[in-house]
Amino acid sequence: MPYYIGDVIKDKQELIVRTPEEFKKSGIDVMLRTAVDGVDPAKGTVSLSTGQVLPYDVLVLATGAEAVWPGIRGQDLEGVFPLKNLTDGLRLKSFIETARCKKAVIIGGGFIAMEMSEAFRSRGMDVKVMDILPAPAARWSGELGLFILEELRSNSVEFLPETRPFSIEPGLQCRLRVKTSRGDLEADVVLVAIGVRGTVGLAESIGVKKGETGAVQVNFSQKTSHDNIYAVGECCEVFNRVSRRWIYAPLGDVANKQGRIAGQNIGGTPGVFPGVVGSQSFKLFGLEVATTGLTEAEAIKNGFAPVSEFIWGLPVARQLSRGEKLGLKMIADRSTGRLLGAQCVAVEGAVKRIDTLAVALWNEMNVGEVGYLDLAYSPFYGGAWDPIHIAAQNIARKL
Amino acid sequence: MPYYIGDVIKDKQELIVRTPEEFKKSGIDVMLRTAVDGVDPAKGTVSLSTGQVLPYDVLVLATGAEAVWPGIRGQDLEGVFPLKNLTDGLRLKSFIETARCKKAVIIGGGFIAMEMSEAFRSRGMDVKVMDILPAPAARWSGELGLFILEELRSNSVEFLPETRPFSIEPGLQCRLRVKTSRGDLEADVVLVAIGVRGTVGLAESIGVKKGETGAVQVNFSQKTSHDNIYAVGECCEVFNRVSRRWIYAPLGDVANKQGRIAGQNIGGTPGVFPGVVGSQSFKLFGLEVATTGLTEAEAIKNGFAPVSEFIWGLPVARQLSRGEKLGLKMIADRSTGRLLGAQCVAVEGAVKRIDTLAVALWNEMNVGEVGYLDLAYSPFYGGAWDPIHIAAQNIARKL
Repeated sequence: MPYYIGDVIKDKQELIVRTPEEFKKSGIDVMLRTAVDGVDPAKGTVSLSTGQVLPYDVLVLATGAEAVWPGIRGQDLEGVFPLKNLTDGLRLKSFIETARCKKAVIIGGGFIAMEMSEAFRSRGMDVKVMDILPAPAARWSGELGLFILEELRSNSVEFLPETRPFSIEPGLQCRLRVKTSRGDLEADVVLVAIGVRGTVGLAESIGVKKGETGAVQVNFSQKTSHDNIYAVGECCEVFNRVSRRWIYAPLGDVANKQGRIAGQNIGGTPGVFPGVVGSQSFKLFGLEVATTGLTEAEAIKNGFAPVSEFIWGLPVARQLSRGEKLGLKMIADRSTGRLLGAQCVAVEGAVKRIDTLAVALWNEMNVGEVGYLDLAYSPFYGGAWDPIHIAAQNIARKL
Repeated sequence: MPYYIGDVIKDKQELIVRTPEEFKKSGIDVMLRTAVDGVDPAKGTVSLSTGQVLPYDVLVLATGAEAVWPGIRGQDLEGVFPLKNLTDGLRLKSFIETARCKKAVIIGGGFIAMEMSEAFRSRGMDVKVMDILPAPAARWSGELGLFILEELRSNSVEFLPETRPFSIEPGLQCRLRVKTSRGDLEADVVLVAIGVRGTVGLAESIGVKKGETGAVQVNFSQKTSHDNIYAVGECCEVFNRVSRRWIYAPLGDVANKQGRIAGQNIGGTPGVFPGVVGSQSFKLFGLEVATTGLTEAEAIKNGFAPVSEFIWGLPVARQLSRGEKLGLKMIADRSTGRLLGAQCVAVEGAVKRIDTLAVALWNEMNVGEVGYLDLAYSPFYGGAWDPIHIAAQNIARKL
């Protein structure tokens, strides 16, 4: 397994900030397609696949994550793709165009699967999404899960619940056939989207400590167990301010922040990464889907006694409403009233509510106060009582 | 000046929840168009214009606010309207239709004037807005003020800066003529929108204490200086959590919250109104305009040493942008780094950013932490570094 230092791709359809030549002008040597064979922490050197040995004072592990594979026969056939990075995306796109794919099967039903189902549909492809769970995007449960399912259905994406892939083999009508616990699915292209795990092989090889999640352990300055080795991004853990545990949350915005904090510390300006609260969002056809904090299951696992509330609200004031739905679920701790998490799905305004609640979570607010937050009210953007207020007050009454 | 107990209007174009008959079923006697002639706090009675005398254990003052008039000759001519309540709105609407108004002049350039300029334009009317200040919607200053002005201009609303009204008289081409420091303006209808003040006559008449703002003073349970008299809504003050002063903020969502807190306390369940941070928004043609917290001038007045940052950002990630502009101004205290306020104007996503920052203000967050808030990132709703992060980090670097 090779480790690449940087991976900059120039493609007119993608936004790439700088080429290696441009980096060079800033005194930064970006070596593309160069594997790291090993690191010697005692000597402070990195051995490259080119034979070069580079000395270092400070080493940053930014090895990212790799797609998890289902581990089934045929997963290495042509036409089966992961989607972890830009290269994967470009390869997939080019394959779809060259092979004129008409039918896609997505193994996994998480948010990457959801986004890709839309991407495939926008090319007129037939899309089937299968998951071992009973609903897609499982963080959004109950009524919200049904809302998501409805959106998939009305956009002609078929979701196969509780479906396990057994193997992939050459197909009859199409290039491929996925054999599953619910029968065979033919497809021109198969996307594997069952998650990612941190690429920690290099870290392991030099004895850098891993956390319980299996990703590299870091402290608040992004330093690993080795004093002059930092780790950032999807190879390492991150502190969750709600559960007060180090979790694995491989998301682009988190990686960006960790990178900046590590750089700042290495550069001599102290800085701590304050952690995350678990915010996330995606677009699914006409829906905004967003969440922050803990789910009820996570709350229980962390020792809280969750009490939750689900409401259908409106993203705008009632007199302006054309019937747009907004579903909001809020979760709090029964004994303290502390807000623990929220999930929102809506035609518009879901991300807005979740961002607002993310800051409430960040500050360990109580649902009692959340019920009276001073938001920028105007009928065009919500009611005088926003769904946030209504859900929070409903929970407060249950405590 | 009569004081009305309740004012429920049934009009198919407006949303009204319940009629007096429906209230009666819940045991609530709503007396419309009934003036209060006086209150005797010693006896605990209210005298009505009908001659009736009602006893009370607890009295709630919800007398609202009244439009401020410019105090010029001709302000009482037919065709000159305030816009404070639903009745005003219905009267204005009916006049415009009946008199087939083609030209409107708005005296005042605040957010009601902005919203009404759009309402008039949507009926194809010619609109001129005049203000004694150099820019409309003065809370949004500098670049944001220009952005608003640009939106007015591209929607053919003429803004007359630093213009003082002298008098209103019958016009030649139109019904009315407004004589101003910048010449005469002819109009079929004139809207006066220079602000409101609390209706405090009744409170004054019974010795209920007023605050420095001139509105009724209340405590955190909405109780006035009289033990069994409460006040809520636009006749009373509200606590600003940022300035830690009692201010006058006549806004519908605040009034709703105060009403609920008063009701809760009167009903025997203690509750405190936690105050506001100064959030506000309006729609202006294709723009979202929102603000929270203090302006720089208010920050200085309150003893802070404000340092501010203005950025042009994007409401979505760069690769999805079609050039939508988002202007964000952020203000912090130089010595502590505490966030003090923010203003945002954008084609989309302004209210979302302001709501998010309103919660940060509520919790007295430092711009250093605001720069690393965990928001629900997805390219469709923002960049991995949101304008909030960028502005906050820029300010943090200035401290």
